[in-house]
Amino acid sequence: MTSTHAASRTPQQDRSRATRRRLLEAAVECLAELGWNGSTVAVVAERAGVTRGAAQHHFPTREDLFTAAVEHVAAERLAAVRAHADGLPAAGPARTEAVVEMIVRLYTGPLFRAALHLWVAAATEATLRERIVTLENHVGREAHRAAVEFLGADEATPGVRETVQATLDLARGLGLANLLTDDAPRRKGIVQHWSSLLESVLHPTG
Amino acid sequence: MTSTHAASRTPQQDRSRATRRRLLEAAVECLAELGWNGSTVAVVAERAGVTRGAAQHHFPTREDLFTAAVEHVAAERLAAVRAHADGLPAAGPARTEAVVEMIVRLYTGPLFRAALHLWVAAATEATLRERIVTLENHVGREAHRAAVEFLGADEATPGVRETVQATLDLARGLGLANLLTDDAPRRKGIVQHWSSLLESVLHPTG
Repeated sequence: MTSTHAASRTPQQDRSRATRRRLLEAAVECLAELGWNGSTVAVVAERAGVTRGAAQHHFPTREDLFTAAVEHVAAERLAAVRAHADGLPAAGPARTEAVVEMIVRLYTGPLFRAALHLWVAAATEATLRERIVTLENHVGREAHRAAVEFLGADEATPGVRETVQATLDLARGLGLANLLTDDAPRRKGIVQHWSSLLESVLHPTG
Repeated sequence: MTSTHAASRTPQQDRSRATRRRLLEAAVECLAELGWNGSTVAVVAERAGVTRGAAQHHFPTREDLFTAAVEHVAAERLAAVRAHADGLPAAGPARTEAVVEMIVRLYTGPLFRAALHLWVAAATEATLRERIVTLENHVGREAHRAAVEFLGADEATPGVRETVQATLDLARGLGLANLLTDDAPRRKGIVQHWSSLLESVLHPTG
């Protein structure tokens, strides 16, 4: 499944993989723009430029498609963040602030908006609920792990784990505050102050 | 409109007022349990034990009913919080933690759940959007004012305003994390640690 096997894939397998990816990306776009009600398999297939039959070949149910889509795009965003981690300041308060900004950016973009529509739909739809809980646990764990790594947080220090978790919860709250209006100006000051508090917990000056 | 005028109201006015209140409370319960799709005026009227015609007399449109409901219940909850403020510890870290717990309780209960369904519906429904933005601004301002008052926060001190706002954003994020699963055990540690950080910003020890 890794790229070293690419040479052994047939052109048909490559096309199938590309179709799958287009469907997943279109599904997240649809969710973010149209919400759960407006996001049918047919709408996604049309946006991805594939037939509805092809979409259903890849994802037998609507729930399969959208759960896989949020999982796929979350993994892609996290990979992109890792790929650009060299660009972060090396250490200290500037790095902490840059990492908090990066986390908050993930939670205020279209991926979060898509996930939010899915979570809220899952609150009242039994067919979605269990798989979204599993998805949320998985994505939440990965986000926490990445935050710990980028912040250089030592979770053995009392209070550090909770403060890193609080940073992700704050980002989620800021994402929600950004749903209906552009909250960027207000958010800026909060992110700055939060970062300096977080820095004081991560690296207390003696 | 205050209680001193109660004596001048007719029995019919009292009944109308009671009906209105039952509709508003039923509307928030419906939203929290059934989401926006499941919450029609007919469903709310039935739960409130009034005819659909009576419901439409008080609230001509579905948007009127649900916007008024979230506003009414938010005002009631805030009034209840104010009424019980005597029970809070007088000052210091214990008061700060009790106030944070109180705020987080507001954002993890049925009122937040109802508001969340309304916000998310407003993201894709133009008829809701503008009024929900107005409602959110108003409720957000009131919540901020109450938090400042109960925390005894001096907003003239640099960073205090942002930290109080971050507390409300964190509470919103914790509310979202509590949507599909009971997040109380994890939340407990976060609330404790955040309270002590907040206390250090509000009342730095010299």
